[in-house]
Amino acid sequence: MNIEQFVAQSLGEWKAMRSSHSLAFKQFEEIISKIIIKPLDINDSNIQELIEDSIYKKEEMVQPFQIEWQAESNWEEDSEQKDMKGSSILIPILRRSKNGIIIRSIGYTEKVRAISYFKFLEDGTMILSTQYNQSTAEERIWFISNSVRCRSSVVRSKDSSAILQTSFSSEVKLRGNP
Amino acid sequence: MNIEQFVAQSLGEWKAMRSSHSLAFKQFEEIISKIIIKPLDINDSNIQELIEDSIYKKEEMVQPFQIEWQAESNWEEDSEQKDMKGSSILIPILRRSKNGIIIRSIGYTEKVRAISYFKFLEDGTMILSTQYNQSTAEERIWFISNSVRCRSSVVRSKDSSAILQTSFSSEVKLRGNP
Repeated sequence: MNIEQFVAQSLGEWKAMRSSHSLAFKQFEEIISKIIIKPLDINDSNIQELIEDSIYKKEEMVQPFQIEWQAESNWEEDSEQKDMKGSSILIPILRRSKNGIIIRSIGYTEKVRAISYFKFLEDGTMILSTQYNQSTAEERIWFISNSVRCRSSVVRSKDSSAILQTSFSSEVKLRGNP
Repeated sequence: MNIEQFVAQSLGEWKAMRSSHSLAFKQFEEIISKIIIKPLDINDSNIQELIEDSIYKKEEMVQPFQIEWQAESNWEEDSEQKDMKGSSILIPILRRSKNGIIIRSIGYTEKVRAISYFKFLEDGTMILSTQYNQSTAEERIWFISNSVRCRSSVVRSKDSSAILQTSFSSEVKLRGNP
């Protein structure tokens, strides 16, 4: 697996079941959402802006893409406060054949611009590491069939390295890239 | 990571938060349980019996161990039908430095004796594959700190290879091997 193949296989519309675990409080959270991953043109103005603000060059980009997500159902009382929908632009920058960085317009743990480091393990699992202001996140994404992927995350406090939360998503592709 | 280190780090008492996802029905299940992993003596009669019934030799064994689990709480209506507690004996047999097999007195997906194949990825993640009568299971176990590990599983139908269920556990060590 390399980043081009990974992005190509990720494009399309997905239904995700996500569980998160707050370790300190032993609390579970469940959510079903729809995720749309679509390719963006390298001349898109948002892409241009993100690249110009970075230390990277346009020529180093691999297929940029956008992720949109929307929760379909929710049975949490405090749903109004939650991020029930959103979108983020991601620009992979290849460094070596099996690793590189991804510029994100909106981060995973904190809703700010972020730089993630990615690498692939020998079985094709992508490991994504991100430093935010208050926290660090490690995500793992691996395909268990052509149309099903798993995604786990671990969020740590940046100060204490305490593990704040883990999560796991099972994602089923409903249709490929239109 | 090798199998000896992996077993040594796993010994002790754990609190597990587990979420499972039934993909076809979009159903979640949550459970909190206690897991005790303790070493067994190679002269234990259960170990002797399992080895004698196998094609493997006593000399090939790595530290055998027992896993006991018990659900602490449950809010499912059909709890009576569920396996709320159980135990299994596991005997690792080393083949090469990074892979081998594990004899299980009771399997993970089906409650029968089973043989699992294990290997370690370069980041220390253990991948365990098991063929049962009706299903196959792939488990992944990785330590995210000395005292926290994650465990995911994918269960497929043996006939159709359809993915029946995925699961994810976050396991926090309460105390080490007594």
